[in-house]
Amino acid sequence: MADSENLDFSKGCAFVRGQYVPIAQASIPMTDLGFLHSDATYDVVTVWDGAFFRLDAHLERFKRSCEHWRLDPGVTDPEITAILSHCVRLSGLRQSYVEMICTRGQTPWGSRDPRQAVNQFYAFAVPFVWLANEQQRANGLHLKISGVQRIPASSVDPTIKNYHWNDLTMGLLGALDEGADSVLLVNAQGQIVEGPGFNVFCVRDGSVITPDHGMLEGVTRKTVIEIAHSLDLPVEVRPVSAEEFKSANEVFISSSGGGVLPVTRLDGNAVGRGEIGAVTRQLAEAYWALHKEPSFNLPISYTPP
Amino acid sequence: MADSENLDFSKGCAFVRGQYVPIAQASIPMTDLGFLHSDATYDVVTVWDGAFFRLDAHLERFKRSCEHWRLDPGVTDPEITAILSHCVRLSGLRQSYVEMICTRGQTPWGSRDPRQAVNQFYAFAVPFVWLANEQQRANGLHLKISGVQRIPASSVDPTIKNYHWNDLTMGLLGALDEGADSVLLVNAQGQIVEGPGFNVFCVRDGSVITPDHGMLEGVTRKTVIEIAHSLDLPVEVRPVSAEEFKSANEVFISSSGGGVLPVTRLDGNAVGRGEIGAVTRQLAEAYWALHKEPSFNLPISYTPP
Repeated sequence: MADSENLDFSKGCAFVRGQYVPIAQASIPMTDLGFLHSDATYDVVTVWDGAFFRLDAHLERFKRSCEHWRLDPGVTDPEITAILSHCVRLSGLRQSYVEMICTRGQTPWGSRDPRQAVNQFYAFAVPFVWLANEQQRANGLHLKISGVQRIPASSVDPTIKNYHWNDLTMGLLGALDEGADSVLLVNAQGQIVEGPGFNVFCVRDGSVITPDHGMLEGVTRKTVIEIAHSLDLPVEVRPVSAEEFKSANEVFISSSGGGVLPVTRLDGNAVGRGEIGAVTRQLAEAYWALHKEPSFNLPISYTPP
Repeated sequence: MADSENLDFSKGCAFVRGQYVPIAQASIPMTDLGFLHSDATYDVVTVWDGAFFRLDAHLERFKRSCEHWRLDPGVTDPEITAILSHCVRLSGLRQSYVEMICTRGQTPWGSRDPRQAVNQFYAFAVPFVWLANEQQRANGLHLKISGVQRIPASSVDPTIKNYHWNDLTMGLLGALDEGADSVLLVNAQGQIVEGPGFNVFCVRDGSVITPDHGMLEGVTRKTVIEIAHSLDLPVEVRPVSAEEFKSANEVFISSSGGGVLPVTRLDGNAVGRGEIGAVTRQLAEAYWALHKEPSFNLPISYTPP
């Protein structure tokens, strides 16, 4: 690690095969099946005010994802924590988007047996990326409901994190073309499931409602549900139709990239009165208040050990 | 390119951002969306006895794939041909597996708009990889029919090449665990669609039958259909049930990784009499005979221009 002292980590830092490198120099082998077959899993934890938020929940999900796809990152939870902390420490970032990755790696030449591949662990920390810009956070997002269906669980289990984003990307491109800020995908039954990097909620008659299947079970989604319970708000976790979203009083999304983010327009029409709703505000405030809660936050030491 | 004279390309050669590098050194940036969102397309052409086989068909499909996913490789067909030829020339390989790739690339920092990314073109040539080993080619493959469903076209169009292979990989792992050589995936209706890197055919009462939708429209599949027509064999391109495959006289797969490859066992049971069938042999011979056909082959000059 002596080398790392002369490198510029200000744009972010990555952990690549045992080395810490500036994010701009971080790469993966072209023949890693994590690229050539998108055979990989990952998780994203955020750092806010110098502390990891709910790192334990992300580590637990990462472990579950690895097991489900039969990937072995070859590192323990304490080792991952140390690597992620060092990435953040070297970058000096107080607000950071931190990703841990496990890829299938490379098989011996000529082999098509994934069991023979040497799995790899990667990680990186970059400046915090908001899912909504300042103006969108102030006025609410405009989302488009796409005709593209999210990949079903019968093909790829969406509760297990993966990089199969083509449906999300093509839906997003369509929405951006039409002037929306982002997109919501549906399942084969036309029910809303999720968007690129976020879960979605609506508020109807005071109840907080979110889809129950066909999407990632986000840590922020889980946090929002816990907050709603603690505030004695009725919560419904069940299939939700596009019509229910369109006629809701409030709509918001949840993501590590900003917590609770308001949606004030859907398919070009105002949601409710077209303003950020009271329940959305209440949940957003409670979400950020949790960032002061010691049990949810792991402070990072920015001085070398 | 002066540098390349001192490098060892014997294991393969890659084209990475304007440079030719030994395959072991080829990498892509960790933050390329081609990796982080599997936002990429590709095509594979083979080199046999020093000539590309049906390169025009692969270039045409690659172009169509790029357009469909709204990717711009930034290179013309003659430029791609020159790059692929140079990769093969530097590696010296007479039999080679050659892949061309276009990734979304990287967006400016903080942007989540794929339209702002700078798309990238990559390529590599490695030694020819057979989809079946010598013994499997002599005796026929044993395939398992998986319960995993291929990602449907309503989510990701399978006729447009992509790296969304999780369903194929998980299906393959299950099949390998049970002692099979590879796997066939089904669609939501339980019909057979394709396997990891190949299309599939059965022969019933002299007719050559292959699925019509829900899978990649392989160049080798197209070649087999053309050959069958030229041999006056009846061809049926239509949905095919698992039961029809199990009770077929013959089953074979088609792939750039070996042309027409026999399947003699399905789910542990013999296909027909458990031997390589006459129609399979006839099609395989005709497939290799096409490698002598000037209109299908583009010879590579192995001496520097």
